Amino acid sequence: MFVLLRRRILAASLAALLPLGCSSSRSVVRTEADASISAAPEEAPRWGLVIPGGAGVILRESLTSEREAAVRATLQEALQAGHVILARGGSSLDAVTAAIRILEDSPLFNAGKGAVFTHEGKNELDAAIMFGPTRQAGAVAGLRHVKNPITLARAVMEQSPHVMMIGEGAEAFARQQELELVSESYFHTEERWQSLQRALEAEGSQARQPTSFWSRPEGRAFKFGTVGAVALDQKGQLAAGTSTGGMTNKRFGRVGDVPVIGAGTYADSRCAVSATGHGEFFIRYTVARDICARLQYQELPLREAADTVVMDVLVKAGGEGGVIALDEHGNVAMPFNSPGMYRGYMGPDGVPSVAIFREE
Amino acid sequence: MFVLLRRRILAASLAALLPLGCSSSRSVVRTEADASISAAPEEAPRWGLVIPGGAGVILRESLTSEREAAVRATLQEALQAGHVILARGGSSLDAVTAAIRILEDSPLFNAGKGAVFTHEGKNELDAAIMFGPTRQAGAVAGLRHVKNPITLARAVMEQSPHVMMIGEGAEAFARQQELELVSESYFHTEERWQSLQRALEAEGSQARQPTSFWSRPEGRAFKFGTVGAVALDQKGQLAAGTSTGGMTNKRFGRVGDVPVIGAGTYADSRCAVSATGHGEFFIRYTVARDICARLQYQELPLREAADTVVMDVLVKAGGEGGVIALDEHGNVAMPFNSPGMYRGYMGPDGVPSVAIFREE
Repeated sequence: MFVLLRRRILAASLAALLPLGCSSSRSVVRTEADASISAAPEEAPRWGLVIPGGAGVILRESLTSEREAAVRATLQEALQAGHVILARGGSSLDAVTAAIRILEDSPLFNAGKGAVFTHEGKNELDAAIMFGPTRQAGAVAGLRHVKNPITLARAVMEQSPHVMMIGEGAEAFARQQELELVSESYFHTEERWQSLQRALEAEGSQARQPTSFWSRPEGRAFKFGTVGAVALDQKGQLAAGTSTGGMTNKRFGRVGDVPVIGAGTYADSRCAVSATGHGEFFIRYTVARDICARLQYQELPLREAADTVVMDVLVKAGGEGGVIALDEHGNVAMPFNSPGMYRGYMGPDGVPSVAIFREE
Repeated sequence: MFVLLRRRILAASLAALLPLGCSSSRSVVRTEADASISAAPEEAPRWGLVIPGGAGVILRESLTSEREAAVRATLQEALQAGHVILARGGSSLDAVTAAIRILEDSPLFNAGKGAVFTHEGKNELDAAIMFGPTRQAGAVAGLRHVKNPITLARAVMEQSPHVMMIGEGAEAFARQQELELVSESYFHTEERWQSLQRALEAEGSQARQPTSFWSRPEGRAFKFGTVGAVALDQKGQLAAGTSTGGMTNKRFGRVGDVPVIGAGTYADSRCAVSATGHGEFFIRYTVARDICARLQYQELPLREAADTVVMDVLVKAGGEGGVIALDEHGNVAMPFNSPGMYRGYMGPDGVPSVAIFREE
């Protein structure tokens, strides 16, 4: 039900258009929404916003109902923040920035405030943003004091001649741009700290070969978490953004796919993608660009392009995670090959659709 | 003449197969070489090595004959180092590493020893390597003490579960891997220091808006320089690598396209690319991946895919530079839209072809 239907395909079987694993009850809800969208004039621009809040080992049994409610409420709040901007004719870039800032400010997601800890007990944040029509992009990595990395990524894109800045240099630019800086303690949350302790303990006897930790089953649970947004505004302009604290217990200045344009974040005039998952695989398979390349050169529908890369190419490679993607027509794809992926969608009707598990 | 001809197309006009701007005299030389290659048994594996040594404002009048001779000799030495490995059946990964190490150790190229200076008078080095058959990749950025960044990129790829490491963390990994570290003074060369002084002077009155420097004509000359290599070994395995000191007078921890997999460096089973040029454009247009995507999904010949991206897409966007590319059949493309690009090719015959200007 995350697909915006165009009038001419409404007659087709709705079931065939649903993403993998949609429950029938949920389908009914969105079918109504889809029908109201499709009843709009054909020339009406399709617009909307999709957000991921992290993919990975998110199991029903390990998520309390209080936490689940808080996650869903924050995802809705982020959708709402982006939607308000899009509804009044604002740009997709503003909508993406606004939605991601809310997720960064929440301790519930692995980005900004809720960033996971490195092996050394620090927080190192990465983010990227890209504007489809101009292919302008900004990316930052290895931040320790920037409250909202997505805002710095955007400043790099708009206020510098560069695309990517890292570490202390990037933070010097943040100071020059008068962005909000915080002390390292701002990013300290007890839950993430305990995650690090569990990761260090699980690593245990592997201490002399720490790099093998991530390939062991107990390392798997610590790998994921990223927030993002892709949006299509009323002018038909696509934008994508992603922000993350990376992997719990990461070391050696490890950077994942988020600030790698074409891997975790990408937008052009036809297609925008934000990814969440095991970043190394997303870099090696240039996941975001590959989805858009298949759409552009093979003329595949967005859904098929995204499904092929996430459910086939990445699965064969062993790369766990998912993406959210939007095309220029407002079609949405949200495939994930992990047990769960926090995600949400909001179209012109302003009805939020938020989901965590596969069967939603 | 940088194209390995296959027997079945030998009858076609040689002129039509030559890269843009090849002089007829040079064509004759390579035509002989091509003829000898094409006379090999058809089942013989095509293999070879291509290297770039930087693109940009390389003008005949500003290059002394001594320097030109030294540049050509070092490019030949790098080709030879890779060729020896390929000729004895070694891997493309080893050939790429060996060739790039020689270029990194030379003060003539903007990588390793000859790296340009940042605004603060430091040297910050980036590199990446990728092995096509497995799509394994390693990338490093913001190094200050690693003598051969390409070797660290390879260690990240082979000895860690990660793809990208930056800054001090990456150097800690280099220490753990017992790679050669040097003091910052190792990278101090008088010529690059003078370049920085000229850049600072040219920046002059723009000091309060330093970020506009690069878009001014006087900034253009300081932008480029990268070394790299792509190779196809006798088993048909492609690899690509790139190494750079970035842009003279860069600041804020700026990172260009080199360590961004899919932008400046990329290899898969069909296609390998190493880029040199104005990195920001190469990131935004995911240049290396886009060339290989056009080959993969549009089934374009390598030459056409590379020419389209470099001579059309990048030119329209204003992105100056070039690429070297190899496909699985040993076809070579080396398009560049800048005045010059250091480049060289060596195939099974062991005859080095080295060129700098367009009309070679």
